[in-house]
Amino acid sequence: MARYKLLIEYHGGPYQGWMRLPGKPTVQGALEEAAAALDGGPVEIYGAGRTDSGVHAMGQVAHCDFAIDRPGKVADALNAHLRPHPIAVLKAEKVDEDFHARFSARARHYRFVIINRRANLTVENGLAWRISPKLDAKRMHEAAQVLLGTHDFTTFRDVECQARSPVKTLDKFDVARYGDRIECTLSAQSFLHRQVRSMVGSLVEVGRGKRDARWLTQILEAADRTACGPVSPPDGLYLEKVDYD
Amino acid sequence: MARYKLLIEYHGGPYQGWMRLPGKPTVQGALEEAAAALDGGPVEIYGAGRTDSGVHAMGQVAHCDFAIDRPGKVADALNAHLRPHPIAVLKAEKVDEDFHARFSARARHYRFVIINRRANLTVENGLAWRISPKLDAKRMHEAAQVLLGTHDFTTFRDVECQARSPVKTLDKFDVARYGDRIECTLSAQSFLHRQVRSMVGSLVEVGRGKRDARWLTQILEAADRTACGPVSPPDGLYLEKVDYD
Repeated sequence: MARYKLLIEYHGGPYQGWMRLPGKPTVQGALEEAAAALDGGPVEIYGAGRTDSGVHAMGQVAHCDFAIDRPGKVADALNAHLRPHPIAVLKAEKVDEDFHARFSARARHYRFVIINRRANLTVENGLAWRISPKLDAKRMHEAAQVLLGTHDFTTFRDVECQARSPVKTLDKFDVARYGDRIECTLSAQSFLHRQVRSMVGSLVEVGRGKRDARWLTQILEAADRTACGPVSPPDGLYLEKVDYD
Repeated sequence: MARYKLLIEYHGGPYQGWMRLPGKPTVQGALEEAAAALDGGPVEIYGAGRTDSGVHAMGQVAHCDFAIDRPGKVADALNAHLRPHPIAVLKAEKVDEDFHARFSARARHYRFVIINRRANLTVENGLAWRISPKLDAKRMHEAAQVLLGTHDFTTFRDVECQARSPVKTLDKFDVARYGDRIECTLSAQSFLHRQVRSMVGSLVEVGRGKRDARWLTQILEAADRTACGPVSPPDGLYLEKVDYD
């Protein structure tokens, strides 16, 4: 057996998320089919981030074991089997057998793209969250800082989240405006299920001027899912990068 | 009658280009239908750039005359009629009746996006030109500079181009690499039909190391359409902005 680390990009639109679901289109499912076709037998693919239905990835990382030790061209071969899926293996490299895409990950970086305008999206349809009311990105950035550090993030955790603990450490939550585009960039060792979308959705309430940083602190401290603001749609969310030692 | 200047964004993928063609999906056709529905009678829309089939626009400009002088909300109303087209009116403003989107334009700015990698595109599918062989963007940038200035651009002009003269003045042709993304940015008062795609396609030959800046000068000076390199696909091309006094 030879273990490979895969760097993967995908358009989340056509998929019910990363996680394999029998009879449903999933990213893991499509990758496992391609890997099985290549290796001539079933291959399990382990991803660093179990992205939700509709969420995109520019830098998802996964690993798998091939029965056949393949010199070079693994990415090309997987991509050939993946067509016409909007999933691409950008890089495949042989790694030590103790490498685990999920458990060895040191940090995960997400980006959330908001287009703040009245007109519907065209080129970026499905790739961003359009919000009509004017958002104050500076106010959003300042408020987001109260979420940094180690907290019980129960408020921002989907009820179906399977993580053992709701306590996570958020290292970065920046919000910046570029014209009518607002980009949120978040980093943590790991995130809870729907944590980014829950935090971004709540932060938009602050950006609209309906709520303030004090409210964000209050709902965080409440550690109560029902205190969360509206959860954002998945369209604007991208798993950007996963760090390893 | 009241003249309006429209700032328009669209995904060129579903359209046979800007220009109205009976029985075919075109951007101008879709806009004229929406404008007619709004105004209650036929409305002609004049665009600054007649973008080709599949070419996108982030900042196309057009004008039209409405029988009814509409206070505010023209963009919202047009967008409502445009759904579900991936065409959006970002701004609509009343202008003097001597304003002409095409003839008053002082400069047109185009962007061409290349993704230089082996793996197929996912999120950017249809929005960029993927090229596998490694391109030297610095070499492309340097070579592109020989095209600046006033020249007979017959080599880079589609045989169906209807412009009276092949002589144009190219003001800017920059090429820059950002990771595996290469962006070409071009400016001129006006361009010939397929000029950008013809120049970018030829420049890629230089980026691949097959040709050099001297060849680019030679084919320009030949003023012969058959001397042109391969014409690029439309996917990576965006009409970014049109300037007026």
